[in-house]
Amino acid sequence: MRTVNAVAAPSATEPLIRTTIERRDVGPKDVLIEIAYAGICHSDIHTVRGEWGEIQYPQVVGHEIVGVVTEVGDEVSSHAVGDRVGVGCMVNSCRECENCKAGLEQYCYEGNIGTYTAVDRDGSITQGGYSTHIVVDEDFVLRVPESIPYEAAAPLLCAGITTYSPLAHWKAGPGKKVAVVGLGGLGHMAVKIAAAMGAEVTVLSQTTAKHADSERFGAVAHYATKESETFDTLANTFDLIINTVSAKLDLGAYLGLLRLDGVLVSVGAPPEPLPVQVFSLFNNRRSFAGSSIGGIAETQEMLDFCAERGIAPEVELIDADQVNEAYERVMSSDVRYRFVIDASTI
Amino acid sequence: MRTVNAVAAPSATEPLIRTTIERRDVGPKDVLIEIAYAGICHSDIHTVRGEWGEIQYPQVVGHEIVGVVTEVGDEVSSHAVGDRVGVGCMVNSCRECENCKAGLEQYCYEGNIGTYTAVDRDGSITQGGYSTHIVVDEDFVLRVPESIPYEAAAPLLCAGITTYSPLAHWKAGPGKKVAVVGLGGLGHMAVKIAAAMGAEVTVLSQTTAKHADSERFGAVAHYATKESETFDTLANTFDLIINTVSAKLDLGAYLGLLRLDGVLVSVGAPPEPLPVQVFSLFNNRRSFAGSSIGGIAETQEMLDFCAERGIAPEVELIDADQVNEAYERVMSSDVRYRFVIDASTI
Repeated sequence: MRTVNAVAAPSATEPLIRTTIERRDVGPKDVLIEIAYAGICHSDIHTVRGEWGEIQYPQVVGHEIVGVVTEVGDEVSSHAVGDRVGVGCMVNSCRECENCKAGLEQYCYEGNIGTYTAVDRDGSITQGGYSTHIVVDEDFVLRVPESIPYEAAAPLLCAGITTYSPLAHWKAGPGKKVAVVGLGGLGHMAVKIAAAMGAEVTVLSQTTAKHADSERFGAVAHYATKESETFDTLANTFDLIINTVSAKLDLGAYLGLLRLDGVLVSVGAPPEPLPVQVFSLFNNRRSFAGSSIGGIAETQEMLDFCAERGIAPEVELIDADQVNEAYERVMSSDVRYRFVIDASTI
Repeated sequence: MRTVNAVAAPSATEPLIRTTIERRDVGPKDVLIEIAYAGICHSDIHTVRGEWGEIQYPQVVGHEIVGVVTEVGDEVSSHAVGDRVGVGCMVNSCRECENCKAGLEQYCYEGNIGTYTAVDRDGSITQGGYSTHIVVDEDFVLRVPESIPYEAAAPLLCAGITTYSPLAHWKAGPGKKVAVVGLGGLGHMAVKIAAAMGAEVTVLSQTTAKHADSERFGAVAHYATKESETFDTLANTFDLIINTVSAKLDLGAYLGLLRLDGVLVSVGAPPEPLPVQVFSLFNNRRSFAGSSIGGIAETQEMLDFCAERGIAPEVELIDADQVNEAYERVMSSDVRYRFVIDASTI
């Protein structure tokens, strides 16, 4: 065991504080990572505040992690000391169910082992990336190409793969019209990736305040969803809509924007159920789908894709002392577009 | 114009009565059909009772029609006097939108012209199949192979195509596990067609009362949805679920039965919205979709498929005088599995 610095939530209602946590010894298949940067995901905030269910405290969150390998177990073959690596939302899975065997560990029938708040194989509760070091099974560690700017790489491990996976699965590409709902941490990555895949991308945001950014990220159009004529103008238009918004949405209005065989994919979800008028699915044979992060192999594919295409998140680098302030700014949508903690300050 | 016998609804609340209606003269592209049989679809009942919106009365319904061609217009090339033909839920569409051009007239952007209660090109309200004759544009008239039993062919024009289309689109076939929710007019056709396509079919019905019928239609299993353990036993099992039930359904429970990339397709819909817990779509990357009848070319494909495979609906033949009684029996699910009116009694 080794004691390392971390930033933890002491309870659902108190600010995060500096503390220390224990990391397990490096096992034969483990990799020890000295964390360089950790992104702040909206999920981190929902989790520590108990909004997605009760958790044990203190809890360290963070599942957008990049760093350098400083030690490897005897049987590790895929990573070496000095490699730049990343860890995302999972640190293990059963590896035996049909989904794990298909390389879709995120849909493990036993439930994948999340990077934080999950019960690990040894019975301990996993602790996330707001920390100086982490020990992870090599199979859940990604290679982060050096051409991706170091401080911008972390958000790819959640925001990147969460949007890349549905865009790839539903075949965003040349000739396809893709809309992205919400231009936050996930949304801005969805725009960049979909545009790089060759799709024609439209941003649907509450207002036109971020119109210039949309274009800079590769979108050809940006509409305000506060204006009801948007939904008339864009009726029967899109092959794919990626909804990155967790708030309650008027699903029927967005479904009406889909053309034949169009799919509305939610990667964010409100805790309460959304009403769906089934008739709104009949027209154009529409679908409403969900997608959760991506498998390990696909996450590597996404990292390589982003490196090759020169795509990286837009980040605002902060020190460990600024995490609570950053949380408030995330809650008020005052971030363009992802906070990343400099782990050397933890 | 010609005056023909029909059975019509005089209002939303009165029983259907015998009456006469006018059919237009046979235009250059029209076919006059002497109707032999007309199926009774649940939609007919919703419609005449005003449950799907206000309509004009008197109204003749019925969109499962078979008969024989007795006259053709000068420019008709695809049908000849004496042919056995059918008419389903549509009698026209705009023919110019991208969906019509793709042969998916059911999703016409202008709205297809329904066989009843729709505003026809000449401004009149279309009148359906509970009648002795109908005049229809040749492009919306199907060829009904002689090998399909005459009195059983009519329900294929709605119940048949409504289930065939999603089964074909979502690729029911060898190696695929398909569940059919509800074993009524649509459900029993879904089972027969999916089994003929080579899929492994399971029926999900409120009770096991129709278990023997399920097997006779080609299902390998039949589970009672009133038993909550059904939903545990069958978790993560199906590639495709065809929901033929219009009543409110616990969507989350049925979505939980889908394996990776599984799709729950509703072909029936309650008038009120259904609550969807978006998280239930994340697991296994599930989709909830809708499907509406099928295009004209696909309807012909379905008729030819049923003829080739020896598939036909199970019907109970009735006289025109029994229509009101049949409606009550449909409402209490006391029909195995489709009422068909002998049009010679109208």
